[in-house]
Formats: sequence, C-alpha cells, structure tokens
Amino acid sequence: MKTETLSDNKLMISMLLKAWTAHVSKVNELLESLSDETLAKPVAPGKNTGTYLVGHLAAVHDALFPLLNFGERLYPQLEKPFVKSPDNSGHEFPPVAELKRCLNDINHVLSEKFSQLEPEEWLSRHTAVSEEDFAKEPHRNKLNVLISRTNHLSYHWGQLVLLKPKGD
Amino acid sequence: MKTETLSDNKLMISMLLKAWTAHVSKVNELLESLSDETLAKPVAPGKNTGTYLVGHLAAVHDALFPLLNFGERLYPQLEKPFVKSPDNSGHEFPPVAELKRCLNDINHVLSEKFSQLEPEEWLSRHTAVSEEDFAKEPHRNKLNVLISRTNHLSYHWGQLVLLKPKGD
Repeated sequence: MKTETLSDNKLMISMLLKAWTAHVSKVNELLESLSDETLAKPVAPGKNTGTYLVGHLAAVHDALFPLLNFGERLYPQLEKPFVKSPDNSGHEFPPVAELKRCLNDINHVLSEKFSQLEPEEWLSRHTAVSEEDFAKEPHRNKLNVLISRTNHLSYHWGQLVLLKPKGD
Repeated sequence: MKTETLSDNKLMISMLLKAWTAHVSKVNELLESLSDETLAKPVAPGKNTGTYLVGHLAAVHDALFPLLNFGERLYPQLEKPFVKSPDNSGHEFPPVAELKRCLNDINHVLSEKFSQLEPEEWLSRHTAVSEEDFAKEPHRNKLNVLISRTNHLSYHWGQLVLLKPKGD
C-alpha cells in the first residue's frame, strides 16, 4: 500500500511534467512556424505583439529559477521590459530571434532541473512563501507553481496561435 | 509515512481542483463583464467569435460527463455546432446568454461531481481508454483529463480576454 501510494505521487508529478513539456514543445513549434514579421504584429488590434509575448514567456519562465530555488535567473534583463512593463512601454526589445533563443535556453535548463526534483521536493515550499505561512497553506509548493505556469503558457499560446495565417 | 503520503495525494488533487475552480470563476467573471454585442465579435480578425468560444467551452466541459463516467451530457445538442464544426459553419447558434447559462450549469454540476471523487477514483481510467491500454498507460486517468481541460480553459480564456475594450 505504501509503495502503491508513493507511486501515485510520482505518477501525478509525471502527468504534470508531461503537460508542461507538451506545452513547451507545442509553443516552440508554433513560434518556429511564424516569421519574425508576423511575430512583430499584435495578436489582435491594439493588443500585445507576438514579440512581446515571447519575451514575456521567457521572463516569466526565467523567474522560476529563484522562485523554485534553482539559482539565479539566466536573463535578468528581460524582467523589466517583459514583466514589469506592458508592451509599447518604450523599451527597445531585442530581436525576436534572440528572445526565442532565450526562451528555449531557459526552458531547456528548467526541464533539467525539473527532472532532478524528488516528489517531496516538489511538495516543498517555493521561495515566495514563508515557513510560517507554508505550515498553514501547504498547497503553496513548487508543484503548484508548475501547474500555474503551465496554465499561464496555455493562456498565451491561445493568443500566439491567432498570429497563424488563415488556412494554416 | 503512509498517512503522510496519502495526504500528499489529496493535497495534489485539491491543488488541481483549486486551479480548475479559479479558472472557471475568472472566465465567468470575464464573460459577465462583456456585452452580448462584444461577444458576437471575433477575438481577432477572421478568428472565432466570443459566442462560438462560449459554446465550445460549454460543449467540451459537457463531454466530461460521459468521459469521467458521471452520466449523460446535459446539453448534447451543443456538440455538433461547437465541437464537430468550426465557427461560421452555417449552424444557427443559440443566443450567447443561453450559452452562458449552459456553461454555468455544466460547470456547476461538474464541480459537485468533482467534489465527490476519492483520490483512487481520480487516478482510475477515463472511459476513452480500454482496461488493457490503461494497464500500460496509467497516466490516462480522470485527473489527467482535469489537468488537460484546465489548460484548455486557459487557452481560450487568453483569447476571450482580447475582447475586453481598451483601458479595462
């Protein structure tokens, strides 16, 4: 029974990791199919551009390093223009090809870190919650961050897909 | 140790249910803030309308009843126009207010059903996988359907939010 339950934990974590990996891979496939010119366009009139969203995803995923106690951000310079500021904030953006490389790089290192975490580490607190609060709110753990960021990725994937030309 | 691990299972399931409930509530809040005229518009030029997406979410959530062995669909008539057909397929749609009522009704009954499932039931197979396949692929369980439909809801939420007028 103990072994069976323990393997249930592992099963659930592997389901969530599979969902994350599938999303990363689908978004990557979509981004590779869109030209830089298309990514420079807003996903809908007056809304965020594809370029901004690529930078935003890279910066939000990069912030997982300190949040999950994996170390420092790889590209801390992305936070100001792509998390702390909206699109059209006057910040000059790096070329989208560079932002895509940052995103891939971050996702690649994250996936290595993820694969090394044991179930009890996934259920341990993330760095934005204190030990006291975590004792009362045990759902504020690293796995919950993975769930939330997978949903965040879905949300913006649904927007980026609107850039696909008709008939694709 | 056994109790601790068992409560880990419950914790993970409750985290996923919280994510589902939060998404349902946020999307509902968004839909209530948009007028019927706004929902009739496409989320981006040439793309799905808000009305179609509301019908699509209702129909996809309704399909969870047979898939999770909860019983029959509540609104089986939604499947053809909103799952089997794209927008602008020539189907006449019910008024969006009615589609919103269907979606709320479905989400309400689903959340009751969800709250009654025990951890071992969440990890049991859904009805689209055979017993033989499930023995080899234990991740094809009911909880995985919940994960996948929460991500699906995020994806379309990201699209529906584009209908919000500027400055909102």
